[in-house]
Amino acid sequence: MSGPLAYLSRKYHFAASHRLHVDALSPERNREVFGKCNNPFGHGHNYIVQVTFAGRVDASTGMVTNLADLDDFAETRLIHAFDHRNLNTLACFRDAVPSTENLCLEVWRIFLEYPHATLKCVRVEETNNNAFEYFGEAPPTLHAA
Amino acid sequence: MSGPLAYLSRKYHFAASHRLHVDALSPERNREVFGKCNNPFGHGHNYIVQVTFAGRVDASTGMVTNLADLDDFAETRLIHAFDHRNLNTLACFRDAVPSTENLCLEVWRIFLEYPHATLKCVRVEETNNNAFEYFGEAPPTLHAA
Amino acid sequence: MSGPLAYLSRKYHFAASHRLHVDALSPERNREVFGKCNNPFGHGHNYIVQVTFAGRVDASTGMVTNLADLDDFAETRLIHAFDHRNLNTLACFRDAVPSTENLCLEVWRIFLEYPHATLKCVRVEETNNNAFEYFGEAPPTLHAA
Amino acid sequence: MSGPLAYLSRKYHFAASHRLHVDALSPERNREVFGKCNNPFGHGHNYIVQVTFAGRVDASTGMVTNLADLDDFAETRLIHAFDHRNLNTLACFRDAVPSTENLCLEVWRIFLEYPHATLKCVRVEETNNNAFEYFGEAPPTLHAA
Amino acid sequence: MSGPLAYLSRKYHFAASHRLHVDALSPERNREVFGKCNNPFGHGHNYIVQVTFAGRVDASTGMVTNLADLDDFAETRLIHAFDHRNLNTLACFRDAVPSTENLCLEVWRIFLEYPHATLKCVRVEETNNNAFEYFGEAPPTLHAA
Amino acid sequence: MSGPLAYLSRKYHFAASHRLHVDALSPERNREVFGKCNNPFGHGHNYIVQVTFAGRVDASTGMVTNLADLDDFAETRLIHAFDHRNLNTLACFRDAVPSTENLCLEVWRIFLEYPHATLKCVRVEETNNNAFEYFGEAPPTLHAA
Repeated sequence: MSGPLAYLSRKYHFAASHRLHVDALSPERNREVFGKCNNPFGHGHNYIVQVTFAGRVDASTGMVTNLADLDDFAETRLIHAFDHRNLNTLACFRDAVPSTENLCLEVWRIFLEYPHATLKCVRVEETNNNAFEYFGEAPPTLHAA
Repeated sequence: MSGPLAYLSRKYHFAASHRLHVDALSPERNREVFGKCNNPFGHGHNYIVQVTFAGRVDASTGMVTNLADLDDFAETRLIHAFDHRNLNTLACFRDAVPSTENLCLEVWRIFLEYPHATLKCVRVEETNNNAFEYFGEAPPTLHAA
Repeated sequence: MSGPLAYLSRKYHFAASHRLHVDALSPERNREVFGKCNNPFGHGHNYIVQVTFAGRVDASTGMVTNLADLDDFAETRLIHAFDHRNLNTLACFRDAVPSTENLCLEVWRIFLEYPHATLKCVRVEETNNNAFEYFGEAPPTLHAA
Repeated sequence: MSGPLAYLSRKYHFAASHRLHVDALSPERNREVFGKCNNPFGHGHNYIVQVTFAGRVDASTGMVTNLADLDDFAETRLIHAFDHRNLNTLACFRDAVPSTENLCLEVWRIFLEYPHATLKCVRVEETNNNAFEYFGEAPPTLHAA
Repeated sequence: MSGPLAYLSRKYHFAASHRLHVDALSPERNREVFGKCNNPFGHGHNYIVQVTFAGRVDASTGMVTNLADLDDFAETRLIHAFDHRNLNTLACFRDAVPSTENLCLEVWRIFLEYPHATLKCVRVEETNNNAFEYFGEAPPTLHAA
Repeated sequence: MSGPLAYLSRKYHFAASHRLHVDALSPERNREVFGKCNNPFGHGHNYIVQVTFAGRVDASTGMVTNLADLDDFAETRLIHAFDHRNLNTLACFRDAVPSTENLCLEVWRIFLEYPHATLKCVRVEETNNNAFEYFGEAPPTLHAA
């Protein structure tokens, strides 16, 4: 409750493949909706995940949270699960299209369990030109920690 | 109303020239206000436009909006109008200085008409080091879609 | 009060060194908390500072604020004070660890005195992968200028 | 033969997936050689291809070659063939591991047929941190056009 | 003649406008050759110039050349001449199309006069995706200083 | 002698501090030669090291060299030695100014011992705008592997 409220953003990188396809739709409709992302056998990306946490700056250490702790958490929970994987084969995408929007929501669920700071935003960049963000479903106050 | 509320950001690129000059001001005052941006004959930039939309993630397609639709809209309405142009000669800058602030407002007006998601922010980067953003004049709720 | 409310972000760059170390803690505890950032003799970074200001777009000049004014302010107050310095030796870090969180707060204090626009955010990037932001302690309204 | 000899480099982008695996090797040996790149079901990347051509600057047009021609060639021969594909399924990788080295050689074969300038180098970036280059097997004179 | 031969590369940035047009050609032919780069009133770019010099590393100072000297030279000779200019209006482009190839040759002529190290390469990036290089017309030995 | 000769480039990152200062020179001369890089207590950078190796592409694995091997070598020999260090305190800079030129030469000495491919170039970027390269003292043939 003491120090000023600051935000920490950290980027993680992984490479994965996916194919956008919905079994319930016809091949024609899949092609129409997903275009080249529906190509058989899939394609891939170098994904960049940015997680943003809010926290009070600790008066003694000058930190919002210890980056070493956050990196350990990310290594175990994010990188190990997604890096060099085919997203379509993962349990979390059994019933959901592995779109980058849904990947963003899944990464949110993972980092929401990080115990040392308050998750505020997950951003996933699929290419240099497009990115997706999720801020959770809480009321739109950026400052409540 | 169904899916979680996510944000999609997409970047578009174009090259254009402009000159910052106000006819109503004296040459000395123009030079004073705009500095080297007032140099006769103009100069130019590789502009990067980033548009951010909010939308519910569709349960079936996993999408906020179809990027193919957004790209078509941007090609017709943004790129065709601004790429490889001199901004000073465009109708939208007849009565306004083609500053990057005003360019940002004009891009907002364009993408506000995109029918498939709610425009939340337009960001225009003039160089690697300076950027302008416009969030509209609505109340400051980032989450209302 | 007239024009639309826009945001201007500008990046400044400087190189500096620091060492994360708290005298009140034991050497073991320092090593435990700060890891390699506690290495004796310090290390350094190319810091990127991004300041974001809100302001009404002036109807005559099309500007939120004159970048030349902002650059002069930054040169005198930011670059001169921090560039090619060891942060641990500066007065502002006499009683605070020169963490990037605390650097971010210090940069906020500096630009809060810029007279021509309303400071909204200071972002400091320590590496490509981690960044810190401070939005002040005011209520979380992004739009009040 | 007239104008000065200059080099033109152009970048193209595509997203694809691949899996590094050699049927003739045992599963253990595949895992040992290719590590996580051997994960079943593959993974993917945003590949950046940079092609470099040498040519005399035309005195009339000021060009080494017309970028519109080069882009048309790249669209038809490179992007159409590789974008949003699984490299393992392509004819050119039927008998070769789709490593980025081999991809680089394949891109060389493609652009060697570009008729309007002399191909000098193909560079393929698999991630921000690793890249491969091929200069052909000719003697090491960078300047002969 | 003493120290090892190293290469120093330094980037400079400027914003300028240009229009690709040859008076001796018909309007139709100009449009055919230069496409959108022939649009009336021009367009512009944020140009990035990289100059590469070879030199022996001085045993006392550890330097190829003093960057402060090179920056002074670049400020006076390059930035002052090209930044925030319309290239078509400059003396050096009176008889030559201001293509990026020709700009590259002109920058070479300028830095060839830098007295403290041997110019080896000039690279001009017009956008993130295309760049031009000139190595001079000397024999292709990268190592002769 | 079998496969085509390709080049592999890999980037490594570390943060370090340094101060440019020569004891044999007077304080005035040090300030004159090194400018702000001579500031007492030093400053720092996020260094980017790029190493380029030549090698024949192995017909079976499709590789020039195994990146996992190279990364292990770099971790032990480069990152462990330089990351989060003050360069002035390292043994290799006891008798040499820790300029980026000299750092480049030192990194060359390290990677020359990598046993699985032929080192061709070391590039060290000190900031986004300046970089140093060393190609060794061998004759200027890029292709001899």
